[in-house]
Amino acid sequence: METIRRIEVRHARGSYPVLVGEGVLAACRRDLAEWAGGRRVFVVSSAPVLRLHGTLLRSALPSSSTLVDLEVPDGEAAKTLAVAGALWEGMLARGGKRDSRLMTLGGGSVGDVGGFAAACFLRGIEFVQVPTTLLAQVDASVGGKTGIDLPGGKNTVGAFWQPAGVLADTGLLATLPPEEIRAGLVEVIKMAATLDCTLFEEIEAGLAGLLAGDPARLAEAVAGAVEAKRGVVEEDPEEKDRRRLLNFGHTLAHALETALGYGALRHGEAVGHGMLFALRLARRRGLADDAATRIETLVRRLDLPAVPAVARDEVLAAMHRDKKARESGLAWVLPTALGRASVVEDVSWSEVEADLDAFLAGR
Amino acid sequence: METIRRIEVRHARGSYPVLVGEGVLAACRRDLAEWAGGRRVFVVSSAPVLRLHGTLLRSALPSSSTLVDLEVPDGEAAKTLAVAGALWEGMLARGGKRDSRLMTLGGGSVGDVGGFAAACFLRGIEFVQVPTTLLAQVDASVGGKTGIDLPGGKNTVGAFWQPAGVLADTGLLATLPPEEIRAGLVEVIKMAATLDCTLFEEIEAGLAGLLAGDPARLAEAVAGAVEAKRGVVEEDPEEKDRRRLLNFGHTLAHALETALGYGALRHGEAVGHGMLFALRLARRRGLADDAATRIETLVRRLDLPAVPAVARDEVLAAMHRDKKARESGLAWVLPTALGRASVVEDVSWSEVEADLDAFLAGR
Repeated sequence: METIRRIEVRHARGSYPVLVGEGVLAACRRDLAEWAGGRRVFVVSSAPVLRLHGTLLRSALPSSSTLVDLEVPDGEAAKTLAVAGALWEGMLARGGKRDSRLMTLGGGSVGDVGGFAAACFLRGIEFVQVPTTLLAQVDASVGGKTGIDLPGGKNTVGAFWQPAGVLADTGLLATLPPEEIRAGLVEVIKMAATLDCTLFEEIEAGLAGLLAGDPARLAEAVAGAVEAKRGVVEEDPEEKDRRRLLNFGHTLAHALETALGYGALRHGEAVGHGMLFALRLARRRGLADDAATRIETLVRRLDLPAVPAVARDEVLAAMHRDKKARESGLAWVLPTALGRASVVEDVSWSEVEADLDAFLAGR
Repeated sequence: METIRRIEVRHARGSYPVLVGEGVLAACRRDLAEWAGGRRVFVVSSAPVLRLHGTLLRSALPSSSTLVDLEVPDGEAAKTLAVAGALWEGMLARGGKRDSRLMTLGGGSVGDVGGFAAACFLRGIEFVQVPTTLLAQVDASVGGKTGIDLPGGKNTVGAFWQPAGVLADTGLLATLPPEEIRAGLVEVIKMAATLDCTLFEEIEAGLAGLLAGDPARLAEAVAGAVEAKRGVVEEDPEEKDRRRLLNFGHTLAHALETALGYGALRHGEAVGHGMLFALRLARRRGLADDAATRIETLVRRLDLPAVPAVARDEVLAAMHRDKKARESGLAWVLPTALGRASVVEDVSWSEVEADLDAFLAGR
């Protein structure tokens, strides 16, 4: 078993540990016994993930816990109000109390809806995230964002609710298909490109090993990305300022996901295309030419699937509905150097439209 | 116009004012202009309340605001996941953004579901409460509790979300039927009995005027109760300790409401019976004999409607599901002297059952 890294994340009400490495679940059996011993533990997961990792999770929990599996659909289909409602009904029917515990075991969607269920059940119960995809280990470990989708937009209903801990066991990543690793690496590159040029250079140098699923390299990448995200989130917990940099690539990504229907592209794939699009806007403004080239080159090395055919006007309409669009307009995160970026407020809709036509046409 | 009292309520992220008195809405036009000017303002209310008070509310808001009425059913029927979902869909469809505002205009249920909608829309937007019932002015002004019901239990889904302000315009109470005033006075008496013996004596002395709707006395009572609640909530924002005293009368009340179906009794009426039941438990333990008598006498002067026929086992089952029941058991708030109370953890289920039979039989 390799070394386990512990990253302590502070927030307004305290702090929690993110544990990263191979074998984290087994290694923290003692902490879990203290947290979950003698209590009801609701395990929010999907059927395929429970088949793969349920036994490992159960063996990490104390025998004095009463485990209740609550299954949700796989992927974005989990993030509906109906699923959240079923979780609440299920917890109430199965004896859930304020001191009951909840664990999410799965990808980002399972963490989002499970975290939201924890946030609002009896006005909030403690939960621990066990992310099973690279994307979720990197992105969902820090920040306390939970939520679900409405038909009109992604993540439009939710809460900030901090976990009691995050167990990012990189051993769980061995069962992932290569496309999932690739989609997760997009978020690592996003974090590195905007926040940490050293991490960026490590990814440039080690990309082949990362794509091949090398567990030691993956643990390094997850820990690096979590550490970078921790820095900005602690500085700006409510996403008023620096934390907005984490939205690099997400403005177009969310619009693509809405216009295409969730599931047509993986979230990481959509973010990859969103970064490429933001780099166009940056170049048009003469920002970060060299950095833009390096970021673009690295993203293209991932060989993401192309954007499916989609109507430009639907993408634009979704951008107008973006929850980050304030009534005063929509802001874009554009890189200014390797490891740095700015939120640019004055990008006009006509600028966006001009680039969007060329981008969607693959030019 | 009588004097307006301003009570500043502190919480973890700052503070907000509760303004109490006749004519508050008109008096704070300038503050509202700053808060809502140039923005979308979602007004969550019910059709009857909008007919009574919508014009006054609209005239207090600046002409630069874009007002969007979002109607919910009256009373507890508003507090469903379906209604919350419709509010979120409605806000998204009508252009709601993170800097949009929400106002609740109505009784406690409207405030609860509207506050919950504000708490979770785009992970939280600012809202102002305009309570239109005595109960809501007294009880919902402080504490940041928002939420909805599940079929299995009241207030089982929700969030702590602090308002930007509360406008308790006692002028709005003039349209209330006498039963509503009476039900609201139960909560004032609850606060006084457990927290403030001076307020208790003022209510004893002035009850006739209060029941008759005397606006000056009502403003005093609202301000006194808000001030008392502010004290405990500031001390214990997360309801771990002293704030639990506010649940005096609520253990049985919630169980009665669940067993009878919401709406069979007004919430305040159920709390009144819950206090009488808790006084039995207190007496059985030799607690606060004199105080118990004075509290019981004052509650009985309200001449509350009797508890409708209900099966004892259903009431007990609902108590077992109470969200305040920890896995370790159910705690009761019992008065220990006038203006003081304790949370008693060791009341056995057999003690409760014995008293419940007699209580429900009207003995």
